[in-house]
Amino acid sequence: MSGVAKTLASCIFCKIIKGEIPSFKLLETETTFAFLDIGPLAKGHALVIPKYHAEKLHELPDESLVDLLPIAKKIAIAVGSENYNILQNNGKLAHQEVGHVHVHVIPKPSNEEGLGVDWPAQQIAKEELQSLLEELKGKL
Amino acid sequence: MSGVAKTLASCIFCKIIKGEIPSFKLLETETTFAFLDIGPLAKGHALVIPKYHAEKLHELPDESLVDLLPIAKKIAIAVGSENYNILQNNGKLAHQEVGHVHVHVIPKPSNEEGLGVDWPAQQIAKEELQSLLEELKGKL
Repeated sequence: MSGVAKTLASCIFCKIIKGEIPSFKLLETETTFAFLDIGPLAKGHALVIPKYHAEKLHELPDESLVDLLPIAKKIAIAVGSENYNILQNNGKLAHQEVGHVHVHVIPKPSNEEGLGVDWPAQQIAKEELQSLLEELKGKL
Repeated sequence: MSGVAKTLASCIFCKIIKGEIPSFKLLETETTFAFLDIGPLAKGHALVIPKYHAEKLHELPDESLVDLLPIAKKIAIAVGSENYNILQNNGKLAHQEVGHVHVHVIPKPSNEEGLGVDWPAQQIAKEELQSLLEELKGKL
């Protein structure tokens, strides 16, 4: 099955891609579809999604990944916000609400609007980072 | 100037790419460099950056964008976290701390670790979305 063709009958985003559910469609390419979020965090909040159905980013074939950021860039330019966040959540604990990969393009016009970010940075020893690095490099 | 070559002498991430500042380097491609964040939000928090120097995503040439998510995917698989966030911040108001585009790959192993997200969704009329859509489509 090609990277473009995999869909899931029960998935709301697959239905949007197929036009079975209406959307505020911005643009599409062979692999990718973009539309306005109907519950925006700020004016211009958009979603960029692969046409291939996968729940999480790491389950997507690479050919379904390459258009996502170039399209997010186009949208960011069209919206014209000086400050914005690109966010893609994987798993309920990480705030994913629809089980089909989606990249948020979220303007940040003020402290009150747009994405709210909490940043609980940890202190970690250099030795621990080095050990983790070796472990990960063995898997890359 | 090629998309790969643009660097900024005073930029800490350009220095990391050139090896002038050491890093916990995971991997690199012709256009892209990845390393562990030394102030992680959770174990395995990594940064994927374009070698081309630009402050914000929309200033990057498309060829500097295409490797970012495939490399983020590789790292997510190596780290093996079930829940994780991909985040790229543009502008101080949007929590950007280093003025060179960087994509965070942040595992979310628990509520206390990883990225904290606040989601102040707005209510917006269909007519307003339709009007915004027409405006943006004229710029895409």
